[in-house]
Parts: sequence; structure tokens; C-alpha cells
Amino acid sequence: MKVTFITTNKRKFIEVRDILKNYAVEIKQLAIDYEENHDASIEEVARSAAEKLTNELQKPIVLEDTGLFFTAYNGFPGALPKFVFHTLGYRGIFKLLAGENRAAYFKTVAAYCEPGEGPVLFEGVMKGQITEEVYNEDKDEMPYDKIFIPDGKEVTISEMTLQEKNSFSQRAAAFRQFGEYLQKNYQ
Amino acid sequence: MKVTFITTNKRKFIEVRDILKNYAVEIKQLAIDYEENHDASIEEVARSAAEKLTNELQKPIVLEDTGLFFTAYNGFPGALPKFVFHTLGYRGIFKLLAGENRAAYFKTVAAYCEPGEGPVLFEGVMKGQITEEVYNEDKDEMPYDKIFIPDGKEVTISEMTLQEKNSFSQRAAAFRQFGEYLQKNYQ
Repeated sequence: MKVTFITTNKRKFIEVRDILKNYAVEIKQLAIDYEENHDASIEEVARSAAEKLTNELQKPIVLEDTGLFFTAYNGFPGALPKFVFHTLGYRGIFKLLAGENRAAYFKTVAAYCEPGEGPVLFEGVMKGQITEEVYNEDKDEMPYDKIFIPDGKEVTISEMTLQEKNSFSQRAAAFRQFGEYLQKNYQ
Repeated sequence: MKVTFITTNKRKFIEVRDILKNYAVEIKQLAIDYEENHDASIEEVARSAAEKLTNELQKPIVLEDTGLFFTAYNGFPGALPKFVFHTLGYRGIFKLLAGENRAAYFKTVAAYCEPGEGPVLFEGVMKGQITEEVYNEDKDEMPYDKIFIPDGKEVTISEMTLQEKNSFSQRAAAFRQFGEYLQKNYQ
């Protein structure tokens, strides 16, 4: 089965492709930069974008939204991790968390939609801690992966292989449910 | 002349009403909570919301978007001052700015639109400094007004009358231009 995955983020595409091949699902990347309402939760962002883009494109699509939530700050940066990284950077993030509870979690909501149908959502969560320094700073990968140690692990995500990350990450958990859903309903 | 001002913020409405009465413009508040794309600048938010809502309502409307930009952090919190206040609070904002350049500016973009026409934008800027403590914390007013001293002033905005704030604020500057535009074109 083939599905279009809408994302402008090549690394997300690679992660999700790796997960879905276990379900005999082949994905194709379509890099459309859709609107995300800044008051909306990641669930609302994923749901409304999936519905809108399916109807525009008139084909089944899947997309995801991922948030990061610091316990010390009422869910900041929430649905806006990219904006916060681009403005505050590691310097501002570390400053905010100095002396605070460093617990945080990632949440991914994947939304699958077919033309004329409502979106189906799949969700995954990964809890952990924000580090006090940046690991693998020069590596070309997702910025928060360099400062996040998942609960039960010893190292940041940036120090793991894709396979290791995909064995427990919140994005992998969401897309495994999606893979199971497709298997159950279409194969 | 009467114009519909779209805002859910009663304080913004009161400020703008006070400005526009000098131009014989009477405004009516319509509290619609429109979508704001979180990647968008305040200009883009105001422009696209004005265009969309004018066409939906089929009457002339004005609305505004206001951003706050910290020199020390690449324009953070930018178009998202409300989200940042609700998550970080004064505690997080002060922590971020401790030992940093405390210069900041507010920018308001007002967008006026008539059905079938493109939006017309009016812009105002107010520069100043973020304080090291909260003034008038219990007063029921805009949160950043309690920690912002405009350049050339001695006190925070929260310690001023509406008339004083309106004599130099970025919102007043934007709406004075709007008032002049209406006078010139319609009266």
C-alpha cells in the first residue's frame, strides 16, 4: 500500500518510512508547508491540516504534528518547538531550565485522512529529561534530540541510531499504530 | 463613520476607540477568534485575517496583530506574546533576560479591508526596556504593560493613564494612521 506523507522535514520522513515498511506501507514525501494555527494544540493542528489537504489533493494523506512540553513551564514550548529553538536557541532554553525540574515529554499526533472521510488520529508520547549541555552539536539532526535523554536511557537521542530511536520514540509509537490500522483495514 | 473592529480583547478595543474618536470614527467590537498561522509574521496574520473576515462578513472591518520582540533573543516572543506569557509567565521571562540586553519593542499592524478590496496596513512601533520586576501586578490589564518602560519614560505603561499610553504607544500610532486614512478617503 502507498500513502502520501505530507512534511517538509526530511528527517521525519526517513523515520516514518523506516517504521511503516514493517507494515508493508510505502510512503511518498510531499513537501507542502501548511498553516498551523498558533493557538491550536498539536491534535487540532494535525486534524485540521489532514482534513483540509485531503480535500484539496483528493487523495489519502498522512501528516503529523509534534510538540515538546516542559514540566517546569506549563507545557512550553508546546506546539511551537521550532519557533522557540530558532529564537531562544540552546542558550535561552538552558537558561530557562537552570535550577528547574528538567522533565519534559514529546508528543506526536499523526493524522490520516481520506477524501470525504474524517481524520483518524494516532498518538505517541516519550518522556525524558532535558540535559544541561548539547550533545553532538555539529551533527545535522533535530535540535532537541541533542538535549533530550529518554526515561530509562543513558544518552541523548542524538547518540542513538535511527533503529534505536524508532524502537521507543513517540513518533514511532504513533506511526506503528497507523501501520496497524492500515493493515487491519486494507490488507 | 462606523467601522467594525474585530478583537476578543476588550482592552485593545477601549484603546482604539479612544484614538479613533479624534477622527470622528466610531468602532463597534466584534469578538471573533480567528486563526493565526504560527509561522506567520504579525503583518501576515493581520493581512490574511482581514481579507478572510471581510469576505466572510461582507462588510468593512479593521483588526490588528501585535508582537513583542526581545533584542537578546532574535525577536522572541514575536507574534506569540500571549502564548509565551501563559506558559513562561513573568518568572520565565525574567529568567531569560537576567544579565541580557533588556531592550525590546512592540509592533502593531492594523489591517483595514473592504469586501472585494485588498487590505491596507498601518504600522506602529514602541521601543523600550523590560524591567526587572513586575509593577502593578494585581491590576487587571495587559501583562507586558507591567514590565515595559518605553524609551524616554520613567515608569511602566501600567502606571500610566490610557490617555498617556495613547499619546505614544505603537497601537495608537498605527490607528492614528488608520484614522487619517479614513478621514482622507471618506469624509
